[in-house]
Amino acid sequence: MNSSTPALPLAITMGEPAGIGGELSLKSWSLRHKELVPFFVIDDSKRLKNLSTRLSLNVPVECITSPSEAGACFRHALPIIEQKLVEDVTPGQSNSLNGASVLASIERSVSFVQSGQASAIVTNPINKSVLYKAGFKHPGHTEYLAELAGSNTASVMMLACKQLRVVPVTIHLSLKEAIKALDESLILHTLRTTNSALKQDFGIENPRIAVAGLNPHAGESGSMGREEIDLITPALDKLRQEGINLTEVLPADTMFHARAREEYDVAVCMYHDQALIPIKTLDFDGGVNITLGLPFIRTSPDHGTAFNIAGKGIANPSSFLAAIDMASDMATKRTLKQ
Amino acid sequence: MNSSTPALPLAITMGEPAGIGGELSLKSWSLRHKELVPFFVIDDSKRLKNLSTRLSLNVPVECITSPSEAGACFRHALPIIEQKLVEDVTPGQSNSLNGASVLASIERSVSFVQSGQASAIVTNPINKSVLYKAGFKHPGHTEYLAELAGSNTASVMMLACKQLRVVPVTIHLSLKEAIKALDESLILHTLRTTNSALKQDFGIENPRIAVAGLNPHAGESGSMGREEIDLITPALDKLRQEGINLTEVLPADTMFHARAREEYDVAVCMYHDQALIPIKTLDFDGGVNITLGLPFIRTSPDHGTAFNIAGKGIANPSSFLAAIDMASDMATKRTLKQ
Repeated sequence: MNSSTPALPLAITMGEPAGIGGELSLKSWSLRHKELVPFFVIDDSKRLKNLSTRLSLNVPVECITSPSEAGACFRHALPIIEQKLVEDVTPGQSNSLNGASVLASIERSVSFVQSGQASAIVTNPINKSVLYKAGFKHPGHTEYLAELAGSNTASVMMLACKQLRVVPVTIHLSLKEAIKALDESLILHTLRTTNSALKQDFGIENPRIAVAGLNPHAGESGSMGREEIDLITPALDKLRQEGINLTEVLPADTMFHARAREEYDVAVCMYHDQALIPIKTLDFDGGVNITLGLPFIRTSPDHGTAFNIAGKGIANPSSFLAAIDMASDMATKRTLKQ
Repeated sequence: MNSSTPALPLAITMGEPAGIGGELSLKSWSLRHKELVPFFVIDDSKRLKNLSTRLSLNVPVECITSPSEAGACFRHALPIIEQKLVEDVTPGQSNSLNGASVLASIERSVSFVQSGQASAIVTNPINKSVLYKAGFKHPGHTEYLAELAGSNTASVMMLACKQLRVVPVTIHLSLKEAIKALDESLILHTLRTTNSALKQDFGIENPRIAVAGLNPHAGESGSMGREEIDLITPALDKLRQEGINLTEVLPADTMFHARAREEYDVAVCMYHDQALIPIKTLDFDGGVNITLGLPFIRTSPDHGTAFNIAGKGIANPSSFLAAIDMASDMATKRTLKQ
């Protein structure tokens, strides 16, 4: 980090308290508290203390009242901004009575980044089904953050690991619905958002963007599907006129080997598995989920609440640590640029 | 190889003479002629001699009249069963007047394996468009082989590299058509053929078969598509009653990392890119295409004629060599079993 960069702390949300989130926050502090960028959690201090003891993690925790205190505290204890839970937590058993606290932790993280007290948000996984019982009305975590941010444009999901960055144009739709949902405006929006984010938060001046076709062999000149000819190529032509650096539409199966990956900074894919198969094949544990197009930086681990292993002390913090490191790196790049 | 195993030679077809096939045959002999299992090519001896000279490969070639002579010849020269071309070959420029010879090479390879003179076929890539001008009437190379074999069941494509074997249920269809083409009989046939082939030709007694869902997260209990519930799971239930060892329907994105791959011998996928993205990400150069369900063993390299580099001496023989090694290994396993 540049010495002139203000070391604003990262805000980490509680996530689903019955999942592995607390364990990840504690383990991450153990592994990162000697490094430069501090973070704090917005969580219930009592439950984190208990968890630390029960899992023999021996993480000292300390309540702070403002993010500005995180830096001084971070070297010797995990800083916590208190967000009390209503009910005691049983690992693996989500309780809707705690839903309001889970949501409050997210809301407060947003107000901290928006008021300039935190540099970025790293979110622990939530359990949507129990939040719906607590009155949550959003399709997902990301949409909720977008609303809190007052953002009215759709955000874009990027997954990144050391070897590869991918962005799916469509995400959580059946394959049939994903094909129907592909249209020009969605492709344009996804590619523009991706291009801007790589410049702003990844320090890449002229991002090289590879674009996958929808069909096998990218349709092979229309003999196996026409979406490449009728939809994707015309969209790319428009974007090239805006100065965006794009490949032709590429066959997806030959895009992801080591030599091919050297030719681009990000691969934009047409559907979920086209993007997620290669990245999870290459790095199953270290992938980070990054939300592009929000007014602030937000990353999250590339896994869920993992109720099946919650409370056992065996959760692997690799993806969460990678999310922290990515958020920290992006925040530094954005600060240096401004 | 077991010393009691008859070392029947492998038959290698000419493929498109204006492509990289001849170069691959020559380079493969250079790299494999000291090994146990001999092979012979059914090709034009003059053009291979010229090619060897022009590319400075210095491969001695020798015409033989029967596959039984291949073994004696193989250690000092590439054995050729003469299949004259009508026209001289210009690299990169396919000539339909040579089409009949290309097809004759394939036909003769089939008669050699069917008469017990060759143990398996390795095919060089063909150029379908020029063969159509020469009267070829089949959708592809594989369908042609199936007809020559007198086989009336659809064959199944497997791709294999050191780390992974995959079988796509649907192949060269647009993604929209692939979804429509998925039905119970196709899934049953593909899985039964795969299971039998792994037993017969790969020496795996009780093959462990992983099955991918069509939709993201394998449909997530029907919330992102119902094909897993309505179509794939019932088909798997039937096959389990036949004693086939199958997983549940799995989310495709989490199936292909190293730990996941340890749990199965083959991954059966619902469409082209779902199967080909992971294998080509893991091993772009060493993948082999294996046709399952034919009455004989047939492998081929996982690439095409590569007109753009034909005649330049720069073709990478890795996939072709892997196809030869795979055919040889499968033939040994099948022979040992019989």
